[in-house]
Formats: sequence, C-alpha cells, structure tokens
Amino acid sequence: MIDETARKQIVRRLQSIEGHIRGIQRMVEENSYCIDIMKQINAVDAALGKVNQIILENHLSTCVTSAVRGDDPHERERVLQEIADVFEMTSKG
Amino acid sequence: MIDETARKQIVRRLQSIEGHIRGIQRMVEENSYCIDIMKQINAVDAALGKVNQIILENHLSTCVTSAVRGDDPHERERVLQEIADVFEMTSKG
Amino acid sequence: MIDETARKQIVRRLQSIEGHIRGIQRMVEENSYCIDIMKQINAVDAALGKVNQIILENHLSTCVTSAVRGDDPHERERVLQEIADVFEMTSKG
Amino acid sequence: MIDETARKQIVRRLQSIEGHIRGIQRMVEENSYCIDIMKQINAVDAALGKVNQIILENHLSTCVTSAVRGDDPHERERVLQEIADVFEMTSKG
Repeated sequence: MIDETARKQIVRRLQSIEGHIRGIQRMVEENSYCIDIMKQINAVDAALGKVNQIILENHLSTCVTSAVRGDDPHERERVLQEIADVFEMTSKG
Repeated sequence: MIDETARKQIVRRLQSIEGHIRGIQRMVEENSYCIDIMKQINAVDAALGKVNQIILENHLSTCVTSAVRGDDPHERERVLQEIADVFEMTSKG
Repeated sequence: MIDETARKQIVRRLQSIEGHIRGIQRMVEENSYCIDIMKQINAVDAALGKVNQIILENHLSTCVTSAVRGDDPHERERVLQEIADVFEMTSKG
Repeated sequence: MIDETARKQIVRRLQSIEGHIRGIQRMVEENSYCIDIMKQINAVDAALGKVNQIILENHLSTCVTSAVRGDDPHERERVLQEIADVFEMTSKG
C-alpha cells in the first residue's frame, strides 16, 4: 500500500485540487469567460494526472514488486494485468 | 457567456466532482488499494472532460457565433484561434 | 477545403509519418527494446496530433467561417456541432 | 524481448497502419472534407495505442518479470522506473 509520507503528500495534493474545483465553480457562477474556465479545468486534469503518477510509482515499488518476486504465478499475473489495464484506461490511444 | 440553465448544470456537476475528490481523499487515508484509487481518479477526469465539453458547446453557439458573424475580422480571428488553442491543449496528440 | 499550400504541407507530414512507421516495423523485426519502440510510437502519435491541429485550424478559417457567416441556421449548427464532436473525439477527458 | 508470435502480429498491425496513412494522404490530395480526414487520423491514433498496449503487456510478462525477480536491485528499479515513465509519456493527465 501507500507509505505514510506519500499518503500525506497525495492527500495534500487532493485537497489543493478540491480547492481548485471550488474556484472553478465560482468562475462559472461569476460568468467568467468560457475559455478561461476550460483552461482551469485542464490545469486540474494535469494535477490529477500527477497524483495518478505518484500512486502508480508507489504501487510498482511495493505491491507489484512483492507479487512479482513472490511464489504465486496467478498473483504475479494478476498484478501485471492490472498495470496493463491501468495503462489502457489512462492512455491516449 | 454561459446561459442560466447551462450554468446551473455545470455548477452542479462541479459540486459532484468536488464530492468525488473528497471521497478519493478518504480512500487514500484509509489505505485503499492503489489501482482502485487510480480508477476513481480516472472517473473524475472523465467527468471534468464532460464539463469541458458542455462549456465548449455553449461557447461555440454563443460567443464564437457572434464574433464570426460580426464585422471585426480581428475579433473573428481571435475567437477561432482560441478554439484551435483549446483543441491543442486538450487533445491527445 | 484545405488550400494548396496547407495541403502540400500536410501530405509531406503524412509521408514522413509513413516512413516513421516503416522504421518502427524494422525496430520490431530487429527485436529492439520494447520501451524504445513505445517511445517511437508516441512520437508518431504526437506527429499525427500536429497534422490534426493544422487541418482543424484550416477548417475553422474556411468552412466553419463561411457556414457561420452564411444565412442557413441548420448549416451553421451542423458545422459547430462537428467541431464539438471532433473535440470530444480527440480530447483526453 | 517480444516473442515470435507477438512480433508477427505487431508487424502486421503496423503494416495495416502504414496503409491507412497512405489512404489519408489520398484523402488530403483529393480534397476530402476536413472532419472526415480528422476522423481517420483518430482511427490511426487508436490503432497505434493498441500496438503500444500489446508491446507493454509483452514487456511486463518478459523483461519486467525477469528483472524484478532477479538479484540486481538497480536493474529492478530501472525497469520499474521505465514503466512509470512510459505511463507518464502516454497518459492523458
């Protein structure tokens, strides 16, 4: 799972993203220019992508490493298939 | 700008996204499985993409239409260049 | 439609992309490292995104501009809906 | 590296993509409608994403598995960092 330091960092990032989203709500209510709102939504998107990246790196060095080094071939396969699935889910193609 | 009905709908969607992000914070604090957290982040991403889409459609039928039908060639060009920029910013390539 | 200069530029870019893809075929046949192949595929992706961007900019300043400035409200709506659809098709969310 | 069966399948897919790109060149030369060209470019994008996916799955079950099960911690770290990098490179965020 995610270690203590990474967990705190991820929660802080998610709190900042939550604040960013509230800011976008205000922009919409105050009738800001559409393009400016879209730019802020893209900034949130990028921030979420960064969180995903931190979680993935943590996952690879912990869960994936233990499973792949372990003795259970099914567990190994399951964990690698999840990485492939997550790649498919988030990729551009 | 964004008309009253669309504005309310967009704010509601952003409030729901804000709640979703708080739910993800709890998942991280409660040490949920990394892959499950990543799936929720991707769901938020998709929801933000939908908001962007609604804002763009509104922008095209209001601001872009007036500017393109207007008499100012610079304004027309500016508005179309913004659409091209927003496409570049959000596209996969 | 696409003007003569842009058309030649787009065809040249597509020819270069075609050559790039043949190069990737050779990499696969010669058993290159997977990660290096994936990097080249991403480079092709970026090059295709650039072509899409050039076509869109051309389309906005020609077809979309005429339709939106024209007298047919259905044609205007059709052309703007296509832009929204193309945005949805290529966007990340 | 990529096993024989997967390699042939990948090369066939890349040859089909190459043909698709030549078809798009013809569409541009014959002055096809911009939006139709963009749709074909997006179809090529999706086909390239599928090739990337096949290569990644192969890479995870061969190179990554051996390195992670091996005795060299630097090699293990290198291989997992590459997966994280490839994820960042291809992801939407």
